[in-house]
Amino acid sequence: MSTRDEFLLDFGRAERIGLEEAIYCAGKSAEQIAAILDAAAERGARFMLTRLDGDKLDALPGHHRRDLDYCKVSRTAFFGSAREVETVPAVAVVAAGTSDVPVAREALRTLHYQGRGATLIADVGVAGLWRLTQRVEEIRAHPVVIVAAGMDAALPSVVGGLVSSPVIAVPTSVGYGVAEGGHTALNSVLASCAPGITVVNIDNGYGAACAALRLLHAAERLARAPER
Amino acid sequence: MSTRDEFLLDFGRAERIGLEEAIYCAGKSAEQIAAILDAAAERGARFMLTRLDGDKLDALPGHHRRDLDYCKVSRTAFFGSAREVETVPAVAVVAAGTSDVPVAREALRTLHYQGRGATLIADVGVAGLWRLTQRVEEIRAHPVVIVAAGMDAALPSVVGGLVSSPVIAVPTSVGYGVAEGGHTALNSVLASCAPGITVVNIDNGYGAACAALRLLHAAERLARAPER
Amino acid sequence: MSTRDEFLLDFGRAERIGLEEAIYCAGKSAEQIAAILDAAAERGARFMLTRLDGDKLDALPGHHRRDLDYCKVSRTAFFGSAREVETVPAVAVVAAGTSDVPVAREALRTLHYQGRGATLIADVGVAGLWRLTQRVEEIRAHPVVIVAAGMDAALPSVVGGLVSSPVIAVPTSVGYGVAEGGHTALNSVLASCAPGITVVNIDNGYGAACAALRLLHAAERLARAPER
Amino acid sequence: MSTRDEFLLDFGRAERIGLEEAIYCAGKSAEQIAAILDAAAERGARFMLTRLDGDKLDALPGHHRRDLDYCKVSRTAFFGSAREVETVPAVAVVAAGTSDVPVAREALRTLHYQGRGATLIADVGVAGLWRLTQRVEEIRAHPVVIVAAGMDAALPSVVGGLVSSPVIAVPTSVGYGVAEGGHTALNSVLASCAPGITVVNIDNGYGAACAALRLLHAAERLARAPER
Amino acid sequence: MSTRDEFLLDFGRAERIGLEEAIYCAGKSAEQIAAILDAAAERGARFMLTRLDGDKLDALPGHHRRDLDYCKVSRTAFFGSAREVETVPAVAVVAAGTSDVPVAREALRTLHYQGRGATLIADVGVAGLWRLTQRVEEIRAHPVVIVAAGMDAALPSVVGGLVSSPVIAVPTSVGYGVAEGGHTALNSVLASCAPGITVVNIDNGYGAACAALRLLHAAERLARAPER
Amino acid sequence: MSTRDEFLLDFGRAERIGLEEAIYCAGKSAEQIAAILDAAAERGARFMLTRLDGDKLDALPGHHRRDLDYCKVSRTAFFGSAREVETVPAVAVVAAGTSDVPVAREALRTLHYQGRGATLIADVGVAGLWRLTQRVEEIRAHPVVIVAAGMDAALPSVVGGLVSSPVIAVPTSVGYGVAEGGHTALNSVLASCAPGITVVNIDNGYGAACAALRLLHAAERLARAPER
Amino acid sequence: MSTRDEFLLDFGRAERIGLEEAIYCAGKSAEQIAAILDAAAERGARFMLTRLDGDKLDALPGHHRRDLDYCKVSRTAFFGSAREVETVPAVAVVAAGTSDVPVAREALRTLHYQGRGATLIADVGVAGLWRLTQRVEEIRAHPVVIVAAGMDAALPSVVGGLVSSPVIAVPTSVGYGVAEGGHTALNSVLASCAPGITVVNIDNGYGAACAALRLLHAAERLARAPER
Amino acid sequence: MSTRDEFLLDFGRAERIGLEEAIYCAGKSAEQIAAILDAAAERGARFMLTRLDGDKLDALPGHHRRDLDYCKVSRTAFFGSAREVETVPAVAVVAAGTSDVPVAREALRTLHYQGRGATLIADVGVAGLWRLTQRVEEIRAHPVVIVAAGMDAALPSVVGGLVSSPVIAVPTSVGYGVAEGGHTALNSVLASCAPGITVVNIDNGYGAACAALRLLHAAERLARAPER
Repeated sequence: MSTRDEFLLDFGRAERIGLEEAIYCAGKSAEQIAAILDAAAERGARFMLTRLDGDKLDALPGHHRRDLDYCKVSRTAFFGSAREVETVPAVAVVAAGTSDVPVAREALRTLHYQGRGATLIADVGVAGLWRLTQRVEEIRAHPVVIVAAGMDAALPSVVGGLVSSPVIAVPTSVGYGVAEGGHTALNSVLASCAPGITVVNIDNGYGAACAALRLLHAAERLARAPER
Repeated sequence: MSTRDEFLLDFGRAERIGLEEAIYCAGKSAEQIAAILDAAAERGARFMLTRLDGDKLDALPGHHRRDLDYCKVSRTAFFGSAREVETVPAVAVVAAGTSDVPVAREALRTLHYQGRGATLIADVGVAGLWRLTQRVEEIRAHPVVIVAAGMDAALPSVVGGLVSSPVIAVPTSVGYGVAEGGHTALNSVLASCAPGITVVNIDNGYGAACAALRLLHAAERLARAPER
Repeated sequence: MSTRDEFLLDFGRAERIGLEEAIYCAGKSAEQIAAILDAAAERGARFMLTRLDGDKLDALPGHHRRDLDYCKVSRTAFFGSAREVETVPAVAVVAAGTSDVPVAREALRTLHYQGRGATLIADVGVAGLWRLTQRVEEIRAHPVVIVAAGMDAALPSVVGGLVSSPVIAVPTSVGYGVAEGGHTALNSVLASCAPGITVVNIDNGYGAACAALRLLHAAERLARAPER
Repeated sequence: MSTRDEFLLDFGRAERIGLEEAIYCAGKSAEQIAAILDAAAERGARFMLTRLDGDKLDALPGHHRRDLDYCKVSRTAFFGSAREVETVPAVAVVAAGTSDVPVAREALRTLHYQGRGATLIADVGVAGLWRLTQRVEEIRAHPVVIVAAGMDAALPSVVGGLVSSPVIAVPTSVGYGVAEGGHTALNSVLASCAPGITVVNIDNGYGAACAALRLLHAAERLARAPER
Repeated sequence: MSTRDEFLLDFGRAERIGLEEAIYCAGKSAEQIAAILDAAAERGARFMLTRLDGDKLDALPGHHRRDLDYCKVSRTAFFGSAREVETVPAVAVVAAGTSDVPVAREALRTLHYQGRGATLIADVGVAGLWRLTQRVEEIRAHPVVIVAAGMDAALPSVVGGLVSSPVIAVPTSVGYGVAEGGHTALNSVLASCAPGITVVNIDNGYGAACAALRLLHAAERLARAPER
Repeated sequence: MSTRDEFLLDFGRAERIGLEEAIYCAGKSAEQIAAILDAAAERGARFMLTRLDGDKLDALPGHHRRDLDYCKVSRTAFFGSAREVETVPAVAVVAAGTSDVPVAREALRTLHYQGRGATLIADVGVAGLWRLTQRVEEIRAHPVVIVAAGMDAALPSVVGGLVSSPVIAVPTSVGYGVAEGGHTALNSVLASCAPGITVVNIDNGYGAACAALRLLHAAERLARAPER
Repeated sequence: MSTRDEFLLDFGRAERIGLEEAIYCAGKSAEQIAAILDAAAERGARFMLTRLDGDKLDALPGHHRRDLDYCKVSRTAFFGSAREVETVPAVAVVAAGTSDVPVAREALRTLHYQGRGATLIADVGVAGLWRLTQRVEEIRAHPVVIVAAGMDAALPSVVGGLVSSPVIAVPTSVGYGVAEGGHTALNSVLASCAPGITVVNIDNGYGAACAALRLLHAAERLARAPER
Repeated sequence: MSTRDEFLLDFGRAERIGLEEAIYCAGKSAEQIAAILDAAAERGARFMLTRLDGDKLDALPGHHRRDLDYCKVSRTAFFGSAREVETVPAVAVVAAGTSDVPVAREALRTLHYQGRGATLIADVGVAGLWRLTQRVEEIRAHPVVIVAAGMDAALPSVVGGLVSSPVIAVPTSVGYGVAEGGHTALNSVLASCAPGITVVNIDNGYGAACAALRLLHAAERLARAPER
């Protein structure tokens, strides 16, 4: 039985749901990833890879390594030609602390890969509220807001009370003790006292970006149907 | 110290974030709710009440009871004049099973209260996939989809793989054993293999509707700025 | 074996640690509570009762019921003569929402029982930040701050970033879904990004007040030893 | 006290319950495993080893390493002569994603070791339903179905609603955040809305195969007693 | 919107997967159940109801109550004509303690409803091993074994080591302290040291019976294809 | 199928393990308990009933109610003739607080039922260490010590550091917030820094007494074999 | 501040509670352990070290390494002269599987260090009941029984139903999935259906031995006071 | 996008809340820490670094390494000139065991960095109560008490019952089995039977020190306002 029997790429995904196939590398061996890249190359397909650790990247054949546009901080890679990014950023990606930046960058990269502009606004946690206050207008200017926050994840609640945009919270695994693993941050944003905040899995910057992409897609669809 | 000191209504909320104040009744005494209604009446304000049990409703003064438009299934009430609901429904509210209907109706009522149209599509869980398949086109016709599901909550993943619209999952507390309390449903949708699904707290139909409202608001804002 | 063998009051507590004995009623039968009151009356002792439900109060002998100064909201009672409350309140007791008021009142009553002044500041949760902002100077004026908050309990972090006073957070069991039972609120305040916040058990307004009393006691001790 | 006192092989197991003894290596030292192999060799016994990591394999004496038929992906080894595998596969082993393949292969190897045929059907998760739909007839052709799935483990529910065969779900530890460790997948399949799905421990491909073997054994027994 | 919109019966289920539709009543209102019975009566359908509490039964219209064959212990009801039960029982339903009998009876009733014979073997927990030993031959005589056990659920492991039949374990919520809710029993059977035991959700006697039905169905299919 | 099939009394238990059969009533119906008492009466057997709530007692037939020696506080009953209790108590049953007394009394009653003497020492929790100090010699005089404690259950650690006797800790479900259900007390005694403390399930006064009985039995056996 | 300020040996422990001081090494640095050994050497004291990993042992100064009687399997060391071990073993140390042997050996070493004899009985788990049955008389011959078991930990329940001796269960962290970390084994033994089993922390072979030592001590005390 | 965009130092913190900015290094890369130090150096700022592992320290540029006053035990570093420490220590930092010393030292270093004196009192856990008793007067002499304790964390309860000072408990992650990660210690101190103990996150010596600093600050403020 060969490695080729172990995967089946969903090439029709973009057409079906507006999001291109992406490869989650954390649970896959370098052999499996290389075989997937081979299959994609044959077909001329492009896609994104997430959670690709440096060690696993190094274990890939040289020609694959060279073909990948890799970002060490977010552990993402682009396979195939990139799209041009729109000039007016539609999404604000807010990171509560410096330690939340890798997750925020995963969201940014996912948006860029699909041609969407996005702005990083980092280290504006609520323990020093002035940092948020001085940038709240900038955040408000974006129709969609992603907020990555670990520990007690109080930031999404405060942002959700200040802006009318959809707020997608990404709890992060930053922290220790009760915060370890991100479950406190997750529960905190789920229990948020600010109405209408939505949540994705812990450290799931990719998923938050996909949710933003669905949303921008729906907005464009609504804009094309002004009679609604 | 009087009951009046115990609350402070956020009347500016609609202007600030596009969502009107709502009163969560589960943790409040009938005395507190009555005092809040008095204060709102003085000001001519309108709002929605959620998680208002029948017993607590019965404990309110008669004039308040009469002023409320109450729905037993969703345990919601409208205080003050209702808005006209738009004719083309923007939101599909999908309930996996019959037992998930109360949560779905909380979302429907919240949308109606703010003038948005919404369609209930019930009992289309994945154990009999044909039930979903025969209604998938109807679901696709709505720019926003809310899916309420308990037990293993497999439905949002399947819907998320079939439609391009934003999918907001509401895990419900329906079930027993490991499903009791809704934590399995919650974790299941957070870990969904379908990209870009967002999640709200267990049984939080109100929050899912608010997220949909934020989203529709953003879409209208984007539609007004076609140059983006 | 008689009920008298089942308790042993700690009458020396006030002398030893500056806090008078209090009776936690939740796990005790009406028979046990009555026997304790009898023993205290014989000795001329005074103390406070916490978590005394209305039903249990009604099950006490009439003369005991009449001797108690009972508060329905906080479920506390004073047995024996009260102290005069100081005129300048030393403690701000902040409640994030209306539903957190019973816990806040348990703290207030405990402080009053020991003669300390305290101010209730209610319904200033972070979803409408202006409510907090307009009262932050009032909070700052108190040397000690207690914050009772349920759900995501974001308020103590924000307060902790704005005031220099000791902040004692009391997570409350207000909420549903992931917030049920108060564990999310508890973990959230323990993981707070604001430095130096301390925490007591869920719904433990009594404990927060005792912590404030220890603190005021220490301050007075330090004030008497200015050479430090 | 010698290492020989530390184990007692259950050589009568096959006769008693139709399943041969297998050695779970994860909690055993290389010394203990070598001693077990010595004891088995003396007796001419054959058995299977599970969870044998490469490092531990390398720590075994050379003659033992050479005697083992080892599979790196599933971390299983056969000790002693293999059986001929039946030509018509009785079991479909379905893997939701590529990352679930190691667990699926542990089940396949266990079945092969006991002479049963089995078919691997990989990467048919529900986020792209067409992948499952195109292979559902193939799955239906097998009297027993094993489904290995991580993350939200929605696949067993969908399969269980489409086929009449016994469905044995193996939750896997694939995933991150709430999915980490496989508990979400486990709870999801236990709470499945599809009736009659059974479950084994997380990552327990071996156990799922044993359950299938018991079942095929029972079927043969029933077939021999047609009067039932 | 009427109650009729809130359900959609899966009448094709028996044909598709060999198991007839059943109605889980715990999360449904008496109004919903009555409407479902009306719809089924119109169609001449028959089905089983599970988790139907006495109070909810009493709240049904009289003609529905009269049409139901109700069992108080298992809280199950049959709607429509029953099938004849086969004479040689294929399934042994073993209950560890007297308190596990209601769950065992739910399994028995489900099997009887579909025409399968089953034997109840109760109160044979491992604390008095002789009770099991004296009935082990009787258990072995059945091709399928269901074991319901709460508390530490040690019985399925012991049974699984003694018989070759498929063993389906149903953990029950019997017990207190760490056993409360059945999670200890569940984890215990999942971690069983006896190979090939499968598990269903806590208290899910219905699900265990459905798994047994799938299995008997597969056995009959294999018996019809002797060339395998 | 009759209720008689639902139980099988372990009459040989006393001979086998030195402890007589006892009936745990919490999970049994009044019908089941009555049938068990009938069966025991026929055989002239005696035993103890635990967790028999007042309501269930009242639901028993009158002649059974009259035959039972019932204790409301511990919810235990003796069926059949009592034994004479030894004059020198061998076991000290220590209760940390007044609320722990019901669990302590369950242990006392179990010991008395088997003829063992025991002393209750109540309300000696560590928050007022003098209460323990003044009774520590009395505790030391008993060869076996049971300590029932809820909340943080610090008492068994302190006792275990002061006496050489075997210390059996019974965590109780007394408390609220993190202490609710007794899990904090349980974990606290399991993690005790005092060596050689053993633990039973939450609220399991009966089990602690049985452990003490096993121990006294072993001591008598050792005393009869002085050559050891 | 020197390392000497960081510890304070409890040299009076043996006199106070009959158990000598032992050093738990897992949380201590090699520097701290070396300083403790120095202090003990000065005083001529002897004690036991537990959880001393090979790496940490290697980091100790050479003269300390040479003075220690180290056991790799149990990670224990004796410092100072050993006692003579009694000839008739008082304690049976039963290990359910081969993987539970390290914990069992920690108990054995602790008993030997204090001069008590003990017998190891390994690999007698309940999945092959004959292995236990053939050694049950040997187990019964010991007045005290320790049972170490991981995974579902069914063995202590079965042993507890067969022997009258005190049974001290040590859950082990052996296993994966739901068994990982030993919590399932722990809960299983706490919820045991066999009466009078006591439990110590996961992997705490040392604690189980200390409990046995307390018990043997109490037995000797009772034997010296035959009038009881 | 440069690393400079990833942080925003809260230089006004000392003025606002009396506590200087500190850098939590656990979630930050060496690149990020170096950039923060650069920015601080430019501004002439001073601050403290916490959770700085030796490996990360070694990865910093040489000039930064030289500028840091590093403590290996507590993994803290001071950047910039230190303050003179007051001569009379205001805070007693009590460590239950030797293994709790690193957390205690983190608290001590934080206090010293801000110029406060503090006394370490180590290895006074309650299993040998005399160790605490002989130092209780020394502890009482400090107006504020921090207690670091792992495992069952019984010490803060006992201390809280003996001294009137504010007691800030720091649960530590010392321990194994149920104590692993510090959750048992955390819950134990939250559920403490001694009134008025407050708690910080697991292993959060820094936070406990900050709480003490807030408290001493409040005391000085109260001392300056003697009319209160």
